[in-house]
Amino acid sequence: MTRGTEQPAIVLVRPQMGENIGAAARAMWNFGLDRMRVVGPRDGWPNPKAVAMASGAGRLLDEAQHTDTLADALSDCHFVLATTARSRDLTKTVYEPREAMAEAARRIAAGQRVAVMFGPERAGLENEDVAQANAIVTVPVNPEFYSLNLAQCVLLMSYEWQRATADIAPKAEALAGTEFAEAHEVEHLARHYEQQLDEAGFFFPETKAEGMKVNLRNMWSRMPLTRADVQMLHGMMRQMVRWANKKAG
Amino acid sequence: MTRGTEQPAIVLVRPQMGENIGAAARAMWNFGLDRMRVVGPRDGWPNPKAVAMASGAGRLLDEAQHTDTLADALSDCHFVLATTARSRDLTKTVYEPREAMAEAARRIAAGQRVAVMFGPERAGLENEDVAQANAIVTVPVNPEFYSLNLAQCVLLMSYEWQRATADIAPKAEALAGTEFAEAHEVEHLARHYEQQLDEAGFFFPETKAEGMKVNLRNMWSRMPLTRADVQMLHGMMRQMVRWANKKAG
Repeated sequence: MTRGTEQPAIVLVRPQMGENIGAAARAMWNFGLDRMRVVGPRDGWPNPKAVAMASGAGRLLDEAQHTDTLADALSDCHFVLATTARSRDLTKTVYEPREAMAEAARRIAAGQRVAVMFGPERAGLENEDVAQANAIVTVPVNPEFYSLNLAQCVLLMSYEWQRATADIAPKAEALAGTEFAEAHEVEHLARHYEQQLDEAGFFFPETKAEGMKVNLRNMWSRMPLTRADVQMLHGMMRQMVRWANKKAG
Repeated sequence: MTRGTEQPAIVLVRPQMGENIGAAARAMWNFGLDRMRVVGPRDGWPNPKAVAMASGAGRLLDEAQHTDTLADALSDCHFVLATTARSRDLTKTVYEPREAMAEAARRIAAGQRVAVMFGPERAGLENEDVAQANAIVTVPVNPEFYSLNLAQCVLLMSYEWQRATADIAPKAEALAGTEFAEAHEVEHLARHYEQQLDEAGFFFPETKAEGMKVNLRNMWSRMPLTRADVQMLHGMMRQMVRWANKKAG
């Protein structure tokens, strides 16, 4: 996640609590966003409480663009999204976060500048604010319950931005370094267990022995065994035999 | 978002601050999740600070399952996801939240019970906790900066659950007919092997014993074990012991 790649600006409109501004900065930087704009913050600018809260993401506040009016904050933008808790009767496209950030990514890739604005904690954006946006984004929350705070809203949008722009991460990447057992190793393990269990009298009664052996083979081949697993399983069986021999004296 | 539809359980493991438990409940309920399980909360249960913070989502706390051990909390689950800040060297599949919740949705549609566990605020899950999971979920954050708090992690997973179930009408898989082992059955198997191998002197030298036990646990929980597999594995070990005793006369 390199700084400096093109990205949407996060515009906080008349934020009230410094703590929330700091928390929003942290939420952004978790997903590699670092362009904040702050419009008419209630307690002035810079805000020491914001700085205290932002720890680790303080640079975003230092570099934030501070303006008195929303129009100034949005003046260089080609496409502006307004986040609202519920859709309003404003005859604008309403996106969910995923679609909104996909659209933002397309436009940014085409050289446009994009902003996403968030309203004050208590009441959200006014209709006059939303009127300055090209489209609306609404998080599809439980209709019975909405309790997202400012930083959580910023977090979800930042997360979706990162998802929209991340290369599709290979599933199971941590397994990439893992050495899975090859078929001949699993076969060898299966034979080891089969022989030893046979000696121990496991495949009994004889009429069922073949079926039991097939089930056991099936189990081994169905498991995603690593080389380390195979070694451990060999070791377990060897130790049981050693123990038995020792008991026998 | 109806209550009562099948959904993953959110398992908070040794949470520290009541406020964070309450905030996690709110995060869940924003996206229609209402099954919380709380394991060994630091300040006891019920927790008045959690209740105060949960306002509007307090029902989730009233109905939360409270247990002392993680094994108890997971005992009825077929598929358990562990959220971790960074991937660990545990040879388990690592999902991103979206894939993880898609997988959870598929399994739930096929009749399985799924849990997603979250560690304590400060340090996250211990390796012994993660060993009880079938797979890991890691939020793909900025490698230079990780500051997600507990409620934010729960929020992102809950959001992705809601997206997974809103977008997809999940199809029950071919897995639907297979009886997979529940976590308590795998746990019981793991204990059986651990005890018996311990008696046989497998966990040697002592300095390596803990690591060997974690590896073994990890292997069991990583395997897609069916009930029939578990019974066969129990039977194998029992037979080895019988054989040893017979040899000893």
